[in-house]
Amino acid sequence: MSNYNSVTPEFIDELKTLLGEKYVKTDADTLDRYKTDEEADERCFHLPDVVVIPANAEEIAGVVKLCNKYLIPLTVRGGGTGIVDGAIADKGGVVLLMERLNKIIELNKEGLYMVAQAGVRTLDIQAAAKAENLLYAGDPSSSDSCQIGGNLATNAGGIKAVRYGVTRNQVYAVQIVTPYGDIVDLGSPLKKCSTGYCMEQLVIGSEGTLGIITQVTLKLQPLPPYKIDMLAIFHDQMAAIGVVPQLVKAGIDPTSIEYMDNPNVRTTSEYLEFPGAPHIEDGIYVIITIETFNEDELDMKMEQASDICEAAGAVDVLEADERIWSMRRNCLESVSLISKVCTTDDVVVPVDEMSDMIQYIIKTVAKYPFPLRINAHIGDGNLHIVLCKLDLSDEEWESELSRFTEEVYTYAYAHGGRLSGEHGIGSKKAHFLERFTPGGELELMRKIKKAWDPNNILNPGKVFNL
Amino acid sequence: MSNYNSVTPEFIDELKTLLGEKYVKTDADTLDRYKTDEEADERCFHLPDVVVIPANAEEIAGVVKLCNKYLIPLTVRGGGTGIVDGAIADKGGVVLLMERLNKIIELNKEGLYMVAQAGVRTLDIQAAAKAENLLYAGDPSSSDSCQIGGNLATNAGGIKAVRYGVTRNQVYAVQIVTPYGDIVDLGSPLKKCSTGYCMEQLVIGSEGTLGIITQVTLKLQPLPPYKIDMLAIFHDQMAAIGVVPQLVKAGIDPTSIEYMDNPNVRTTSEYLEFPGAPHIEDGIYVIITIETFNEDELDMKMEQASDICEAAGAVDVLEADERIWSMRRNCLESVSLISKVCTTDDVVVPVDEMSDMIQYIIKTVAKYPFPLRINAHIGDGNLHIVLCKLDLSDEEWESELSRFTEEVYTYAYAHGGRLSGEHGIGSKKAHFLERFTPGGELELMRKIKKAWDPNNILNPGKVFNL
Repeated sequence: MSNYNSVTPEFIDELKTLLGEKYVKTDADTLDRYKTDEEADERCFHLPDVVVIPANAEEIAGVVKLCNKYLIPLTVRGGGTGIVDGAIADKGGVVLLMERLNKIIELNKEGLYMVAQAGVRTLDIQAAAKAENLLYAGDPSSSDSCQIGGNLATNAGGIKAVRYGVTRNQVYAVQIVTPYGDIVDLGSPLKKCSTGYCMEQLVIGSEGTLGIITQVTLKLQPLPPYKIDMLAIFHDQMAAIGVVPQLVKAGIDPTSIEYMDNPNVRTTSEYLEFPGAPHIEDGIYVIITIETFNEDELDMKMEQASDICEAAGAVDVLEADERIWSMRRNCLESVSLISKVCTTDDVVVPVDEMSDMIQYIIKTVAKYPFPLRINAHIGDGNLHIVLCKLDLSDEEWESELSRFTEEVYTYAYAHGGRLSGEHGIGSKKAHFLERFTPGGELELMRKIKKAWDPNNILNPGKVFNL
Repeated sequence: MSNYNSVTPEFIDELKTLLGEKYVKTDADTLDRYKTDEEADERCFHLPDVVVIPANAEEIAGVVKLCNKYLIPLTVRGGGTGIVDGAIADKGGVVLLMERLNKIIELNKEGLYMVAQAGVRTLDIQAAAKAENLLYAGDPSSSDSCQIGGNLATNAGGIKAVRYGVTRNQVYAVQIVTPYGDIVDLGSPLKKCSTGYCMEQLVIGSEGTLGIITQVTLKLQPLPPYKIDMLAIFHDQMAAIGVVPQLVKAGIDPTSIEYMDNPNVRTTSEYLEFPGAPHIEDGIYVIITIETFNEDELDMKMEQASDICEAAGAVDVLEADERIWSMRRNCLESVSLISKVCTTDDVVVPVDEMSDMIQYIIKTVAKYPFPLRINAHIGDGNLHIVLCKLDLSDEEWESELSRFTEEVYTYAYAHGGRLSGEHGIGSKKAHFLERFTPGGELELMRKIKKAWDPNNILNPGKVFNL
């Protein structure tokens, strides 16, 4: 662990010389604004000593060099939409904002790729592709406010991963500023490459600990013109989950397969004032999206999917309109109706372990004093477990939650699962990662971090501690 | 660079104690057999001091620990099908054979993955999947003799990458023996994961320099039941290449798009005694494979592809039978008709640079005294350039080849290309990698290698030198 120095007036002066007075902030309002990201628990907040807003990779490299020179920790902040404290400067020092690196540099229609600075909003990436009848397939639910660089840093997931994979599957190349302040390009828009180590894939998902991503080269694909959203309603959880392998094996290649348990159906329909939502009382929802390049193909696949769901015991198969998706998107927010404080988790297991995992959770939570809701990307084995504090005392909530989480993670790891499918580890789950990751794997990670960042300057304490 | 020790009787004794007498070979015949892989140039051969044939990961870990203890370099050999000297023990020491790790451990039909030891033949992996109506999509042309571990080590490509991606896209997890002899599992069969560094992707394609892959967990997918191979024949190279983005944008999602220039068409038809091959005199071949889950969909896509090719100027569009694929597979071998010695290269560029790259090569080779043949995975931007020595002197051949290669690589790098699309770097291209890779990127690779393998024991001199 590095022994960091305190931020000094001399360090601030050097930053101002580098970036311009205007882009180095030490006023109380600014520092306060960047004490947290989407984290709501005040105990996790931490004020940075200085916030910098560099214009480009060269300025970022300069900042990183200064941080190494003065031994000051640096935390990178994209859109600030994370919920595992990834953008909180736990150790003080510098918070670096990416918002000025907001340009799309190139959209290559023949080569099917886009080059963009890391601070571009994900929604703007998606829109730029769509304007050319192309698809950028990364689609985290925070796309209207998150940044593409943050998506890469956390290997963001979302609802389209069943068909298209996660963020790391959408990337050809990255430019990074290394932890010692070099600007290095990794990768190229190549469909095949066996030329040296694939370090772009190492950097993706490393949550800013191995480099600051300054530019990305993203894969684009043709945008399928035909699309249908279907809602299959079940009474039985196992039957609902059971359709996943059948949809996949039939070659339907669904874009999304999403799951809402019945408590979610009830709460979201109430929250969104949608009393006409089908089967509110006892329905478990499975939302299936199918996209094709041909209308006949869409009809065929829709019919097949419908048959599979009915044979599996669906009580109803309907076309899903925007209100159904809205219910799915509001699973977390709607819980505010029943509890001021709640928590969401992000565990992931192999798809064939999904049904058992959900049953295990339902059985386990019965021992605890909080209600449970599960929504899930069931096509990917990725569960979001929402727990409600209700009127438990802080101490009781903390201690029960901690016991429950421990049980769930232990089960998940025993069945090939991991702590996070898409949210990342941040500093919030770092102690879990250290405990659940086998020693040999953790040692290899630490060797890379130490080799690339000997002063432990970049995002220290995120993912794991040294 | 490590200062290695010579192999001593004491070291051999310790190996024999560990593996059993039978699996530690120092006889002249065995050493001679493993002095090369598919390399034919005797100047590249190197005799190992000892060949070991361990039974499992534990024994491999033991060998690696001994190599560290005695400072003996170790070179791993899979199927020995490489052509960049990857399995040649340039620095002497141990050659380690993977052939006894030849078991398929699990085929999970619901989770759609297969767990296998690294020494299983790729063809056996493919066959085991197919027997369950599933597809393992990795398909290098040496699949009948290469091993799955070697496929991962080199990130092997092949003809199905247009639709399915390369080997790294088929892998959920690996077990490795680290360069210091720990057994570590990296990854899990998860469709989403944001839990620590993605080191399995780092290890894949690192050509055995970062770990010995002992076990792999591979993605399986449903096997499309309908398939057609089409042959589109062009007179114009640009028109032929021009169909690639159109096929992709139409959503046809072809499995393969392969290219043979006319010299290849002539030579292979002669080599295979197939005088009835269409348009031998002036045809440029583009082979397109389409697979679907539905017969109507196949018909639609075939018609679309045919229309695209004809609109682009194809003089003929036919159904391709096995003889056409045989021509494609024999591009390299058939050159023996005109030259005893020839060489093949493996450069890769972004798909939209493919046509210009081919034209550049044709223009450039005109200055040189050797004939050229180009076959290519044009759907991936991956070219195989075959050059014939004819009756050039060794000196002239070497020096002209070296100048030509330099020109081609320089052009490729200036256009986003790289040295190898699928063959890897081995020791044969290591000096090129060191010269063409920007310093910053090479430094990051070296930092990882040094951190993981401080004694430089594993596959030293492959990919790059320390």
